[in-house]
Amino acid sequence: MDLLIAGTIGLDSIETPFGRAADVLGGSATYASLAAGAFALPGIVSIAGSDFTDNHKEIFTGRGIDLQGLTVAPGKTFRWGGKYDFDLNNRVTLFTELNTLAEFNPLLPENYKKSKYVFLGNIDPVLQLQILNQLQNPEFVALDTMNYWMENKLAELFTVLPKVNAIIINDSEARELSKEFSIHKAAGKILGMMQDHPLPPSFDKRGKTSPEGRPPGKTLIIKRGEYGLQMFQARKIFNLPAFPVEDVFDPTGAGDSFAGAFVGYLSRSADFSWEHLKRACVAGSTAASFCVEKMGVLGLLDIDESKIKNRLAEFKRLTEFDMGAD
Amino acid sequence: MDLLIAGTIGLDSIETPFGRAADVLGGSATYASLAAGAFALPGIVSIAGSDFTDNHKEIFTGRGIDLQGLTVAPGKTFRWGGKYDFDLNNRVTLFTELNTLAEFNPLLPENYKKSKYVFLGNIDPVLQLQILNQLQNPEFVALDTMNYWMENKLAELFTVLPKVNAIIINDSEARELSKEFSIHKAAGKILGMMQDHPLPPSFDKRGKTSPEGRPPGKTLIIKRGEYGLQMFQARKIFNLPAFPVEDVFDPTGAGDSFAGAFVGYLSRSADFSWEHLKRACVAGSTAASFCVEKMGVLGLLDIDESKIKNRLAEFKRLTEFDMGAD
Repeated sequence: MDLLIAGTIGLDSIETPFGRAADVLGGSATYASLAAGAFALPGIVSIAGSDFTDNHKEIFTGRGIDLQGLTVAPGKTFRWGGKYDFDLNNRVTLFTELNTLAEFNPLLPENYKKSKYVFLGNIDPVLQLQILNQLQNPEFVALDTMNYWMENKLAELFTVLPKVNAIIINDSEARELSKEFSIHKAAGKILGMMQDHPLPPSFDKRGKTSPEGRPPGKTLIIKRGEYGLQMFQARKIFNLPAFPVEDVFDPTGAGDSFAGAFVGYLSRSADFSWEHLKRACVAGSTAASFCVEKMGVLGLLDIDESKIKNRLAEFKRLTEFDMGAD
Repeated sequence: MDLLIAGTIGLDSIETPFGRAADVLGGSATYASLAAGAFALPGIVSIAGSDFTDNHKEIFTGRGIDLQGLTVAPGKTFRWGGKYDFDLNNRVTLFTELNTLAEFNPLLPENYKKSKYVFLGNIDPVLQLQILNQLQNPEFVALDTMNYWMENKLAELFTVLPKVNAIIINDSEARELSKEFSIHKAAGKILGMMQDHPLPPSFDKRGKTSPEGRPPGKTLIIKRGEYGLQMFQARKIFNLPAFPVEDVFDPTGAGDSFAGAFVGYLSRSADFSWEHLKRACVAGSTAASFCVEKMGVLGLLDIDESKIKNRLAEFKRLTEFDMGAD
């Protein structure tokens, strides 16, 4: 267990123009760990209620996902209800019931504290910081957040941002966080929020460097739904389209699937070079493309190595060109 | 003059959050020909009024753009007014005055009839057909259209679509034309509208083939504004992001600049292979990126070879990745 994934476990109710589902397994830690599971063996830090059944557990443990960091508390599991219009880029939250999530106090099992690779899903930045402070020697930490925390816990969020290696957010969140409309300018500002501060002590102490001789560069990934993503480091940009699936059935969890598979892919080597981060983006986008093809987590449950390999190759064909003599 | 560009010449009034301009040179033929001018020497088929001055003419002729196909009629030039919100992806048309455009009756000068490369900008499909019917032996014809013609001249549009090699439209237009929400499915349907019919007689008679031994494949390019474009042929997709300019100042004409430079680039060789069409997309997107950086056509007026080469190289860095051993 070298990959820690912190976030929510939820029972979701989803309505799309193509179908609906009630109380199905969801949440950021669920999507991220199932997607990461295609590349690594993650462990989860989360909380659920007594309605989180053995059948639910089996979905994780049957895939080698570690649940030692999962607290099962008396009461109900976090519930979320959302509805998508025909334009699947927009969704409306119908309800949110925190339930046991309101008591989430993430205390890491001893062996989790040694985790090298970490994804902090979209939860209270105070909890994200609490988790970070328990880690002994993380090598790569990626963080997701959302507009709610920008509006209600901005100071706490600003405390966490400089401590992570990568931020993975969507474009409206990047615009809100930076107060810039131009994505290009927004990225510059957010990288500044990450870089105006010293690197986490672990990097200073150990002088850990990437194969290119630098500490892992501060990295920002801006997700743009059906339009793909842009990854930024100082003076570097990478664009990757979304994989063109025939039909998006349910976009729920696409962003968490991306992030989980992104960090899961990175955890297989200690390569934090720009070229390798790009590969991790392709791996993440591939996982997201499987996620959106079916309702809830169903699209993630039957991914296998050969399906992934095929889609990785298609991604290459989709984007490459050669200007020849020009 | 081997590249014919048909479309509007207009005097535009533009409001963006960053500035405004009144009665500035615009129109699809203007943007397309100025952008094509970076790669070729186009000739224009259009109409203007007596307020189209020698200064206006000089903007074209000073760049080697042929105006023999331009009718200057008594009356006023076509006028359009538009306003962009802070979200530059959305614009509102404030007014449209057809003026002399209402009398546009495109009769090609003799030497224009031999044009091999053609861009039919967004005008009445009846006029697009009239132009096509005067051409003796076109090798590559690209067409733009819009929702207005889908709603008011659909039968005429369906007559033109099978006669062109490439359609260049934006995503909402592709959705409206196909009545499909999924861009992937929309593309398939539109390619069907182009391919359910025989190739233009010129291809049948001459057996003209691309270097890969096939007639130029029917090609659909769907423009997605700041998100770039997708190019489709049967069983082939190519994704290209928009060039990440620091600030978009005025998006007017970006699509026409793309199309003009796309066909202009193609006109330099008789290569219609998929790989070469991709290169033409990069050339077109480069021209569009210069267009949006300044008000009106100003961004197109000072492009030069070295600026283009630099941006082409940046495009490559922006999108390429290598999965290595995966």
